[in-house]
Amino acid sequence: MNSFIYDIPVKVYFGENQLSHLGEELKKYGNRVLLTYGGGSIKRIGLYDNVIEVLHKAGMEVFELSGIEPNPRIESVREGVKMCKEHNIDVLLAVGGGSTIDATKFMAAGACVEHDPWEFFGANAKPIERALPLVTILTLSATGSEMDSGGVISNLATQDKLGRLAQPLLPKVSFLDPTLTYSVSAYQTACGAADIMSHIMEVYFNMNKDLYMLDCFMEGMLKTVVRYAPIAIAEPENYEARANLMWTSSWAINGFINGGKKKAWSCHPMEHELSAVYDITHGLGLAILTPRWMEYCLDETNVEKYVSFGVNVFGIDANQEPMTIAKQSIQRLSDFFFKTLGLQSTFTEVGIKREDFKEMARKACRYGDIRGFKTLTPEDVERIYEMCL
Amino acid sequence: MNSFIYDIPVKVYFGENQLSHLGEELKKYGNRVLLTYGGGSIKRIGLYDNVIEVLHKAGMEVFELSGIEPNPRIESVREGVKMCKEHNIDVLLAVGGGSTIDATKFMAAGACVEHDPWEFFGANAKPIERALPLVTILTLSATGSEMDSGGVISNLATQDKLGRLAQPLLPKVSFLDPTLTYSVSAYQTACGAADIMSHIMEVYFNMNKDLYMLDCFMEGMLKTVVRYAPIAIAEPENYEARANLMWTSSWAINGFINGGKKKAWSCHPMEHELSAVYDITHGLGLAILTPRWMEYCLDETNVEKYVSFGVNVFGIDANQEPMTIAKQSIQRLSDFFFKTLGLQSTFTEVGIKREDFKEMARKACRYGDIRGFKTLTPEDVERIYEMCL
Repeated sequence: MNSFIYDIPVKVYFGENQLSHLGEELKKYGNRVLLTYGGGSIKRIGLYDNVIEVLHKAGMEVFELSGIEPNPRIESVREGVKMCKEHNIDVLLAVGGGSTIDATKFMAAGACVEHDPWEFFGANAKPIERALPLVTILTLSATGSEMDSGGVISNLATQDKLGRLAQPLLPKVSFLDPTLTYSVSAYQTACGAADIMSHIMEVYFNMNKDLYMLDCFMEGMLKTVVRYAPIAIAEPENYEARANLMWTSSWAINGFINGGKKKAWSCHPMEHELSAVYDITHGLGLAILTPRWMEYCLDETNVEKYVSFGVNVFGIDANQEPMTIAKQSIQRLSDFFFKTLGLQSTFTEVGIKREDFKEMARKACRYGDIRGFKTLTPEDVERIYEMCL
Repeated sequence: MNSFIYDIPVKVYFGENQLSHLGEELKKYGNRVLLTYGGGSIKRIGLYDNVIEVLHKAGMEVFELSGIEPNPRIESVREGVKMCKEHNIDVLLAVGGGSTIDATKFMAAGACVEHDPWEFFGANAKPIERALPLVTILTLSATGSEMDSGGVISNLATQDKLGRLAQPLLPKVSFLDPTLTYSVSAYQTACGAADIMSHIMEVYFNMNKDLYMLDCFMEGMLKTVVRYAPIAIAEPENYEARANLMWTSSWAINGFINGGKKKAWSCHPMEHELSAVYDITHGLGLAILTPRWMEYCLDETNVEKYVSFGVNVFGIDANQEPMTIAKQSIQRLSDFFFKTLGLQSTFTEVGIKREDFKEMARKACRYGDIRGFKTLTPEDVERIYEMCL
């Protein structure tokens, strides 16, 4: 069992009508705020007007950067960095989902250095020692960016989609209001659920001995998503469902569940190559890959992990052969993604083509084999891609 | 479902051999440290020497206050406050269990005010707006003081034992090394387990609708204690058992599981009166009280909570009448405390006498009825005490 450091000093205002605290939190850092967001959805749901009103009441000077795209691009980050420097920004306020928050994190870091923000990524990445303070208002339960220290940025020029973790990227404060996710579509809710589950499963499926207490928490969060994602899809304004998904999305990836586990993730690097090339929704890519990855990795040495998963998350009868339970577990997860949540189930359906597998597999392993639950070579990754056709 | 604020910025070094980071963490706050501890146990296990060596290597000027008692007393707090003021202390380092950490929290706060630290307690308690920075090294898994913002202090002169919560009391950094609990006796391990379970159950047993995700986490932590406390008792140097108990003890009471729940605790105020008068171990008092309290509160309106508890924590067969499951749940908990952990099961055994019930019940309700899971008047508390005979 490895030692670890727990250090997640993000303050969270959870629930409805907490925006009254936004002004006091921002003003701790200064007066000049860069407000970042994506498309028009925050205007449609009235959030934009509320935020602007609070900012003006607090006497903040507001600069705006909109149009941050899903799978956010380095160009947006560069634009944000430029604005931070030009306008002497004191604090950034990201309003949106993981894409907006991710992009804004690297604006905050980029504002503190002279080099191009793309140099924060890749094999010879530059250190991230400082960042401007970041406050977030979350509108989509999925990536957990509101409470973690990482982000993922795409560079279409190089067909790269790369992640980076660094403690200074952690938001100072995040506002989590489940009602702001009422307008999230059934499809995006389903993709978000798959993303949350993947974040947990990437850690859960690990043969390193670690804290049982954390395994229990992971199983509890997986059960929570299985219970509430279908409710949120059927009743978009069900507060209980939206609240459970929202708080689970944050805890799935803020680092708590890692404990001392040190294994790499598997499905995320495989998926990032898909969405780098095809620009498909991250959660959908994960949903298609995850059951195939589980099937590919299953063997006698790791079957017990599948058994715990199936019994404790899906309530599968424990009085069966381990291998039987394991296969049922994979089937139950597939059924959940593709029947209950209604997500597309194959690469063929979403237009991902065999001809790109070799190159995507090579890139997924650009830093070496994926040393996760089971070590995956580029050939393994290709085979898993093939299982998704 | 109520809104809430999550704000637990404690940094934790978890695991063996993390003390090498102690110097760098303390030096963030200054050079003059007040080291506090209880009896000689930290010397017996060699921890005292290790800490002193690290402090000297870091060039800290060390002042010491030892002899902090179990159920720590206001006199010790006063002594610590005096030392902080006399020696211009920059940072406090508490080495021990909840008693030492609790007492040190109020030294840290008392050092910032002119009035007597006992004025932080009671009906007209003075505000706690500041405290000197506090770092802790934990040697007993029980109270969770290493990661929460509260503490409990006894005043034998007034026969009071009172708690207080305030955000400035939160430790900056806590070192959690499971090997430091290897020397904790079977009895103290059992009492600690009961204390941890009580912290969770005080929140879990609550009819306010809140996040299912948090209920799952609570059930997972309770399962963890049920699984590992007997192992830690049988094999005191089992790292896995000690580690699970240690991290669970912190998360049982750091505030995360509260979500938006606003109900008062029940067993803790009833127990504090016992240990204020009889000076018995807190966890033992809780173990005796909790199953009786559950029995006293059980009715048709709340039976489902007992069912979830019994099925999800003790694995009781769900295919029975709810009331049957509820009664089995109470029995399983009693068996766990009094058979598996071997704790004494009645007030009679530990010498608590009926003649004190009326006064203790009155004091348990000094601020009004206990508005917890079920509202308890002084008469209710007396009746629960009687069930413990």
